[in-house]
Amino acid sequence: MKLLIINPNISRDVTHLIESEATRSIYPGTELTLATAPFGVAYIETRAEALIGGYAALQIAAEQHAHHDAIVVAAFGDPGLAALREVMPIPVVGMTEAALVSACQHGGRFSVIAISQRIQAWYRECITAYGFAERLASIRALDEPLAHIGRVQEDQGERLVALANQAVEQDGADVLILAGAPLAGLARTVATRLPVPALDGVTCAVTQAQAMASMEIAAPVAGSFALPPEKPCSGLGPALARLVGRQPTDT
Amino acid sequence: MKLLIINPNISRDVTHLIESEATRSIYPGTELTLATAPFGVAYIETRAEALIGGYAALQIAAEQHAHHDAIVVAAFGDPGLAALREVMPIPVVGMTEAALVSACQHGGRFSVIAISQRIQAWYRECITAYGFAERLASIRALDEPLAHIGRVQEDQGERLVALANQAVEQDGADVLILAGAPLAGLARTVATRLPVPALDGVTCAVTQAQAMASMEIAAPVAGSFALPPEKPCSGLGPALARLVGRQPTDT
Amino acid sequence: MKLLIINPNISRDVTHLIESEATRSIYPGTELTLATAPFGVAYIETRAEALIGGYAALQIAAEQHAHHDAIVVAAFGDPGLAALREVMPIPVVGMTEAALVSACQHGGRFSVIAISQRIQAWYRECITAYGFAERLASIRALDEPLAHIGRVQEDQGERLVALANQAVEQDGADVLILAGAPLAGLARTVATRLPVPALDGVTCAVTQAQAMASMEIAAPVAGSFALPPEKPCSGLGPALARLVGRQPTDT
Amino acid sequence: MKLLIINPNISRDVTHLIESEATRSIYPGTELTLATAPFGVAYIETRAEALIGGYAALQIAAEQHAHHDAIVVAAFGDPGLAALREVMPIPVVGMTEAALVSACQHGGRFSVIAISQRIQAWYRECITAYGFAERLASIRALDEPLAHIGRVQEDQGERLVALANQAVEQDGADVLILAGAPLAGLARTVATRLPVPALDGVTCAVTQAQAMASMEIAAPVAGSFALPPEKPCSGLGPALARLVGRQPTDT
Amino acid sequence: MKLLIINPNISRDVTHLIESEATRSIYPGTELTLATAPFGVAYIETRAEALIGGYAALQIAAEQHAHHDAIVVAAFGDPGLAALREVMPIPVVGMTEAALVSACQHGGRFSVIAISQRIQAWYRECITAYGFAERLASIRALDEPLAHIGRVQEDQGERLVALANQAVEQDGADVLILAGAPLAGLARTVATRLPVPALDGVTCAVTQAQAMASMEIAAPVAGSFALPPEKPCSGLGPALARLVGRQPTDT
Amino acid sequence: MKLLIINPNISRDVTHLIESEATRSIYPGTELTLATAPFGVAYIETRAEALIGGYAALQIAAEQHAHHDAIVVAAFGDPGLAALREVMPIPVVGMTEAALVSACQHGGRFSVIAISQRIQAWYRECITAYGFAERLASIRALDEPLAHIGRVQEDQGERLVALANQAVEQDGADVLILAGAPLAGLARTVATRLPVPALDGVTCAVTQAQAMASMEIAAPVAGSFALPPEKPCSGLGPALARLVGRQPTDT
Repeated sequence: MKLLIINPNISRDVTHLIESEATRSIYPGTELTLATAPFGVAYIETRAEALIGGYAALQIAAEQHAHHDAIVVAAFGDPGLAALREVMPIPVVGMTEAALVSACQHGGRFSVIAISQRIQAWYRECITAYGFAERLASIRALDEPLAHIGRVQEDQGERLVALANQAVEQDGADVLILAGAPLAGLARTVATRLPVPALDGVTCAVTQAQAMASMEIAAPVAGSFALPPEKPCSGLGPALARLVGRQPTDT
Repeated sequence: MKLLIINPNISRDVTHLIESEATRSIYPGTELTLATAPFGVAYIETRAEALIGGYAALQIAAEQHAHHDAIVVAAFGDPGLAALREVMPIPVVGMTEAALVSACQHGGRFSVIAISQRIQAWYRECITAYGFAERLASIRALDEPLAHIGRVQEDQGERLVALANQAVEQDGADVLILAGAPLAGLARTVATRLPVPALDGVTCAVTQAQAMASMEIAAPVAGSFALPPEKPCSGLGPALARLVGRQPTDT
Repeated sequence: MKLLIINPNISRDVTHLIESEATRSIYPGTELTLATAPFGVAYIETRAEALIGGYAALQIAAEQHAHHDAIVVAAFGDPGLAALREVMPIPVVGMTEAALVSACQHGGRFSVIAISQRIQAWYRECITAYGFAERLASIRALDEPLAHIGRVQEDQGERLVALANQAVEQDGADVLILAGAPLAGLARTVATRLPVPALDGVTCAVTQAQAMASMEIAAPVAGSFALPPEKPCSGLGPALARLVGRQPTDT
Repeated sequence: MKLLIINPNISRDVTHLIESEATRSIYPGTELTLATAPFGVAYIETRAEALIGGYAALQIAAEQHAHHDAIVVAAFGDPGLAALREVMPIPVVGMTEAALVSACQHGGRFSVIAISQRIQAWYRECITAYGFAERLASIRALDEPLAHIGRVQEDQGERLVALANQAVEQDGADVLILAGAPLAGLARTVATRLPVPALDGVTCAVTQAQAMASMEIAAPVAGSFALPPEKPCSGLGPALARLVGRQPTDT
Repeated sequence: MKLLIINPNISRDVTHLIESEATRSIYPGTELTLATAPFGVAYIETRAEALIGGYAALQIAAEQHAHHDAIVVAAFGDPGLAALREVMPIPVVGMTEAALVSACQHGGRFSVIAISQRIQAWYRECITAYGFAERLASIRALDEPLAHIGRVQEDQGERLVALANQAVEQDGADVLILAGAPLAGLARTVATRLPVPALDGVTCAVTQAQAMASMEIAAPVAGSFALPPEKPCSGLGPALARLVGRQPTDT
Repeated sequence: MKLLIINPNISRDVTHLIESEATRSIYPGTELTLATAPFGVAYIETRAEALIGGYAALQIAAEQHAHHDAIVVAAFGDPGLAALREVMPIPVVGMTEAALVSACQHGGRFSVIAISQRIQAWYRECITAYGFAERLASIRALDEPLAHIGRVQEDQGERLVALANQAVEQDGADVLILAGAPLAGLARTVATRLPVPALDGVTCAVTQAQAMASMEIAAPVAGSFALPPEKPCSGLGPALARLVGRQPTDT
């Protein structure tokens, strides 16, 4: 089995964190291709950044999905996830969605531990859009500017553990989601210091991607996730144009 | 990895259907233990029957979970799932919950295809209790008495495929869930005749059980899924008393 | 009129509390039969304990309902309520549901005062399952282990009154529900110390049971609360088998 | 016990229907005072008519509540109910709210059978405002102009029974509410022709009013249903001014 | 364009505040008619007061709407809004609804800053009834008795600004609504001291009224906001009787 | 006042339709700048197409917003709206959001009339994400492939009117939204043939944009719609990089 893991941001440091955690989460025989966005921002905190990251993820998926069995969008908030799912012939998994479905199977309500104050509104909207709002106990987030996105775990690890414990004690969380690709691997490191299951988005996404690929379910030819109807397009690059326009007009 | 699969009903025919489909859904090295309820009804259509099946599942889990890595409750509606999840030291997966989380990862809205008219109210309540109501496109169900619960697929297969197609065309389903252990294996058989992904609860549950066990997450010691506080009990049988009462009073 | 009041737990002390309060809530001519679960735990805090209590309540109801006009399930969380309502030919009332419908008729939002931290998740899920979540202002609960379940009122009365006042002042509660059979009678005792209506689950349930019985409404023969369709069963005891299986296979 | 039953409309025919049904629903010793709105419309189908009826009900309650133990607002949609509940020192019950809480205790989902197409939007908004929308299976309504509001039952009885049966068979209703004071008494008449419990708003309201009065719960002195803070008023009539202004400025 | 602005309360001071702010919010050529309730209370905090104010607004609208292009109901909570919208042949706008739709267009979640503790329950119910509850971040309110309703801004301005800032910092508000006609104009005064958009209900309502009138959309002749069906009425005053009864019976 | 109207699709025909309708909806003195996406598809039916259109809209806004007072995103589904709102210093209005808020001010529930079957899922998700799902009566859509996106009104006008009437008669719509930029102007043409208000997204958006601009509310400096925190970026083009990265790294 071969997974394409897309970092929708430009930070190669974060791609390395994702790869390290993903490597620990695969079954024997699973291979990984890692891709980093060729344009965009260092990490996603806002709706505008998510739109940019989503477009980058869509382009990467169009260009590189061949010969893979599933795709992972590896940024919290799942930029572009629904779009990719419509046009890709293979399963597409998002870190947030995967963490949420895993959380539901471990307990009743969950809290999300996040890396910045600003990111909370965007997370809340994603969770609500998936329909999981009533199971969200709280979002708790760091409140200092991040010195370096690739070293958040080292710099802020203690504070993140403290926030996680507060979510259990004060907010009624049965499960914790340590959110955001920059935190990839942290759940594994601090598991013994937390009294409830702590989920890592990368682990959950890679595990769910393998689960979905193993079910060998054919892509839909009806419903709202079948390939979109053919229509004229322009300016999209050949790979994306083939998917969206079906009769590429720009090649 | 070793899974304990519990049929909360007394029908050994259905246990065999579950086992056949489960066997097709496991990774190399996964072993299965199948258990059938020692008391209860032939299949679950109602809240009363689910209560009986849930109690049977709890007893079986208490008695047989040792040396397993995860438990599957193999009846739609997940009788006893939350109760088992509280007292078991290993992951517990339900057919309905597993199918729902898989459905969410394949599309927007899903329909459930069910074996009887009566069963629909109970299914709807379960789906609502999990918080997935707004993604339910419809429930469509057979409307004739079942001649034999172990032969529903042979007797009613064509009708079930017709209902599934109606759900896609008329109700806007992106994904289908062929619901109930008596339909175990049907999705695999009829997949090519359905235009959207058709999910089998047993496949989903076994796949998710392996996914959860592979994540090796410790059981909670806080929150509402930690072991209940110790308290006096009586009349429960030694295995269940050890879990619920912690200081068994009846042995 | 004759009411069967079922304590789904094994604590006879609590049965006595229930009886005392119920006796104060009946109209002239109403008679009471009290029953205590023959197996289970001392009091219900969790989903697992509620499953056990629900199964005990179902057995008691099957065995003792003859010659009664309504049944009261006298534990907060209403273990087994929907199941009993399906199979009993007479009205069945639960303490939680009865308190919730009474609360809705006294104000806008209500708070629940509970006997333990752990019990809150289970209460919240029950209230949500009934569809009353948006009217729940808060749940506030004792945070110490209970020395004796039959003496909570004496031991923790002051603390419970303090929690109730906080719910009014800080959470916007228009109505208070003093929850759990171990608190039966407390609302009556402390009413003058609370600035809003304080409801006792036993009072509400007994009052609603009499109201329902007085309306003399026939049991349904269609819909999802008609008797379940006949099906094979085994191992259930003759009374329950007659209800669920209709053609008892084990007698 | 003494109940004040307010018909917020000007139709004395309907007041007589209400009185007939109420008389059948009281316990020995309960006395009734019937009041008909001195201004307004013949029956309420719309938000504007409900506003007029609500204001009439508020005036009647202010003037006549003394020496009563509870008040019933006897029009579907409960015009003025929350307003009365704020300013009256005794329990106030509405036909709709009472029927809804009774319906919840008889089954899962209910349908409302109504006397006109136009009335449906107003009913739906009331049910949603109470928080019961997710338990509403359907509203089905007559689609012809009413010849005489006091003779709807005679003129349209067969059609109403047909609508009720459709709600059970096609919409999944476990319980029926025959809605509107002009249908008072119909549920009793046609009960044997309907396969699920059919509730009469007047019966439910009178029964719940007696239940609430029997609980002898003091009016709140805090929360949002305590008497409003004193403030200047003018033009209200002395009884209402005393309640709302507390220091009447117009007498 | 000509707008009829109705103050549903008796405070002429507040009518002057409304007029001042409205005058600053109109386009060239827009004219204003101001009307003050001939009966009622000084300001609305409760459901009972809103019912009185709504009835007053309905009477004023019936009597004075001729020759106007739109109506504004100028009290927070929009007393009588839906009723007026049913019977008026021109657009009707409410302060609360207008502020809510403006808030939705400026951000994700909003907080409401209110003039009294008691008023919060009523505001919350209004916001919920409009379907905006999930976008409400918080309601924060003054907690002292108001010395004079026409001088709240002068007396409590600093405290209101402090509450507004707390809503942004602690509750996650993207937008603020300074609620209640007594605060008309405050948003304009304190805008530079608040870090997010602060909306004035009067400004929003007058702006939306002009927007609606400019779209020149005909009143409905079907649906639930068409004129109610004709029916007998009495005691309503000729203008209202013409609208509601259509064949006035009391003139 | 100067409005920038962005067509996020590549169809210049549709841009002309938008311009024609917008010109009819402006106040004296308002000027329009029209922009068409330089890359993308002919019209948006799906999530993938919306992602592409959203990214195009973000680029256009970054490049052309200077010297404008408000921006209109002129495609149904509002591609990129929240993203633009975060980074633009002026109000941003979307066709869908504007039509929804107008619909709420004209009635209770609304129906959306759409140009293709496939588009319905995407519309439903947008409406739900804005929090308006409970006011959606139905979506009804054309079920034939579109011959030419610029001539849908001529080719399918009668069918669209028929769908609109069905929504009123069968689905309970109080208001109609004729959805999608290709239908710009249709509401005006067919208004007299529809019994309830029919809203045009372009009209609503242009009207709301003028309303928002006229309120002269400063952009937020806190909350989740303030400019995102500075962070490294690459590959974005200078205008977008200045907004998102603040310290452009690629110029």
